[in-house]
Amino acid sequence: MSKIKIALFGLGTIGTGVADIFLNKKEHIRKITGHDVSLAQICDKDTLSKRDINIPSDILTNNPDSIFNNPEISVGIELIGGIEPARTFVLQLLNNGKNVVTANKALLAQHGAELFEAARRNNCTIAFEAAVCGGIPIISSIATSLQANTILSINAIVNGTSNFILSQMEDGGTSYSDAVKEAQKLGYAEANPAMDVDGTDAVQKLTILAQLGFGADIDWKNISRMGIESVDAIDFKFAKNLGYRIKLLAVANRGDDGLELHVAPTLVKRDSPLARVHNAFNAVQVVGDYVGPAFFQGLGAGRKPTASAVVGDVIDTILGRTKITFDTLNLWNKNNEIVPIKNINNFYGKSYLRFDAEDRPGVMRDFAAVFGKKNISIASMIQHEISNPDNNNSNKQRAVIILITHESSEGDLLEAIKELENIPSIQGKIIRMRVQD
Amino acid sequence: MSKIKIALFGLGTIGTGVADIFLNKKEHIRKITGHDVSLAQICDKDTLSKRDINIPSDILTNNPDSIFNNPEISVGIELIGGIEPARTFVLQLLNNGKNVVTANKALLAQHGAELFEAARRNNCTIAFEAAVCGGIPIISSIATSLQANTILSINAIVNGTSNFILSQMEDGGTSYSDAVKEAQKLGYAEANPAMDVDGTDAVQKLTILAQLGFGADIDWKNISRMGIESVDAIDFKFAKNLGYRIKLLAVANRGDDGLELHVAPTLVKRDSPLARVHNAFNAVQVVGDYVGPAFFQGLGAGRKPTASAVVGDVIDTILGRTKITFDTLNLWNKNNEIVPIKNINNFYGKSYLRFDAEDRPGVMRDFAAVFGKKNISIASMIQHEISNPDNNNSNKQRAVIILITHESSEGDLLEAIKELENIPSIQGKIIRMRVQD
Repeated sequence: MSKIKIALFGLGTIGTGVADIFLNKKEHIRKITGHDVSLAQICDKDTLSKRDINIPSDILTNNPDSIFNNPEISVGIELIGGIEPARTFVLQLLNNGKNVVTANKALLAQHGAELFEAARRNNCTIAFEAAVCGGIPIISSIATSLQANTILSINAIVNGTSNFILSQMEDGGTSYSDAVKEAQKLGYAEANPAMDVDGTDAVQKLTILAQLGFGADIDWKNISRMGIESVDAIDFKFAKNLGYRIKLLAVANRGDDGLELHVAPTLVKRDSPLARVHNAFNAVQVVGDYVGPAFFQGLGAGRKPTASAVVGDVIDTILGRTKITFDTLNLWNKNNEIVPIKNINNFYGKSYLRFDAEDRPGVMRDFAAVFGKKNISIASMIQHEISNPDNNNSNKQRAVIILITHESSEGDLLEAIKELENIPSIQGKIIRMRVQD
Repeated sequence: MSKIKIALFGLGTIGTGVADIFLNKKEHIRKITGHDVSLAQICDKDTLSKRDINIPSDILTNNPDSIFNNPEISVGIELIGGIEPARTFVLQLLNNGKNVVTANKALLAQHGAELFEAARRNNCTIAFEAAVCGGIPIISSIATSLQANTILSINAIVNGTSNFILSQMEDGGTSYSDAVKEAQKLGYAEANPAMDVDGTDAVQKLTILAQLGFGADIDWKNISRMGIESVDAIDFKFAKNLGYRIKLLAVANRGDDGLELHVAPTLVKRDSPLARVHNAFNAVQVVGDYVGPAFFQGLGAGRKPTASAVVGDVIDTILGRTKITFDTLNLWNKNNEIVPIKNINNFYGKSYLRFDAEDRPGVMRDFAAVFGKKNISIASMIQHEISNPDNNNSNKQRAVIILITHESSEGDLLEAIKELENIPSIQGKIIRMRVQD
């Protein structure tokens, strides 16, 4: 039995979970790997705070070089998060011939090409199951088990924070701001939850899924993105009446004319598996040409589920499965065939729109004319009088208009929205969500 | 690029799907494996019938020896099903140094030890993703992605035929026999569906999951098994009133005193993920000590989903991932630690019971006395007058009694059932299901 030494960067929530497994399930890991695997070094800028597991003080350091320069370390786990210093540390690990396991979706979405190129150059590997949907084995399932398939679509709830907020609003009638506070109280949301609720986190994970499932290399900033900040209690009420729930969906959809990618709050049919994913759970529905729909659900974040994925990757790396997968997938390789990404204006789909308008004759004619001009037909519409109009406008009766369109092109829809927002009798922004049947 | 030749035994429904992928997705497989993989030989006793895909006639044979003796074949796929000749063919493949991919749950459940021993002796591998839940990557997820976890429980719907029948009865109000006919019409059930509806198929799959997830080596015939043949429309009605759906569940549950294994029609809470698995879908809920609950759903049978799993395994075998997994799992090895299996009498759980009784004073006292003696307390009870009593007994009023017990030991419950069946005023068998909250 040989000794294998690994190192960990970042002793936060997930790092503590990973350290916990390596320190307390040594025999379990020895049985699987046949090796004496030890967590030999942990690097964190904070070496003083007490953690809620017992970390031997001699393995904790704030000097990353002591890991890069340690020839005994063969695997480095990056759990710092964000771009820097994570990017530099991962490159240093690879350049020193160490394999990398990371949970960092932002880093992969932004610097995947650079890091994977560095890994190939150094004959090393990068494993990243934990970067998307925490404990759900979605990366390995697409990378290996489903490999006979051409992936046709991926529809996923990848952000637990926003799913928790939407669930609270839908099931508990909570307001958006109260739901955010509740998520923060329970540790599901950061003090600043912007990246979760504005769809950034979801788009970064979708970028990784799009690379893995479709070979698509796209800058995550170029993916169409809508967040959940404008979703209101009234939307859940109307969605429910129409037979839908509202979920922040990340979608990759292969079409004849390219790959459609977007993140948006989406009305999904109440009886679909994705509609029933509640609170902090994540879920992915993959459709393959042979397997058909395969659905995965689990805890997408948090200390233990994410640690489960990280340690799974470390074991795969030690056993050599990661090397095989890394070589065959050949991700983020600039020599790969370019997968065409569909122009957003050519997306086709149904939309949900909500806006406030003056409640007087002629207003409906005005906005109906806009839709008519853009060839967008309305599938259903609800007009609902606002009982407490703004004080500023108290002399005018106002109504909230909610409508669902038939399929239209995104280009036409976006132009229609712009025109609607210019109609004087329509007040404020048009709130828009996608609709999936 | 090297040439890799594989062979297939059994050109039935799934075999045709597998052949379809190898013949028509050659470039896809070449991209992943880096090899020119060809389906060089197909063995079926029927070489004459026309299949609905175009099979080159020169690769079809009814002589298995021509495959065993072909030194160019490195992987053999066994899709014959059943015990013989599948067992002999698999042993022959292994003894001739060929790796095996199989979808045969009956064979593994019954002869796993013999076959895995033969594989180890010959330095070969056996892969079997398709043997449990068709296209759902449950074997590889437990074997690799979730490997950091100690598996705590597996609850699964592994038989699509019975799930289809139960769904038809529940959603469509269909009778059991009509639901079976519908399943046969749609190709979900064999002409003789006994192995599906009596739980044999589920028990065999549970045997494999128990070996993989818990290291349990048990003869599938010794697993507690109840089928769905006695489930009646009235059960769905009452289950619904009580907030449950009825599913044929395969359960493996790790306890301090051993592993609990059983297959039974089970009342599951309507809002649980397993309750929402409809028609021919399969699903598995795995709970690990770190990942928490991970839920997988997909098509568990049929040509394309099962072929997806088989070809995934072939690719893993070619790439060498299977070898690593096979060696580390070391399944069905007689030198493995013996995992204690809980005695059925020591299972604890709630039960649903239904029986017919005379509707007269004193009857309830009689059966209440039986439960009292066995320390089984009743959580809820419904007595329902039978409007059309048997002609034979038309002079007596009869009632159907449905009750749910609090947790009791299986031993006490089985004894209570025996005593109840001896009470003269109770007619026929006691129908019993498990209840899971």
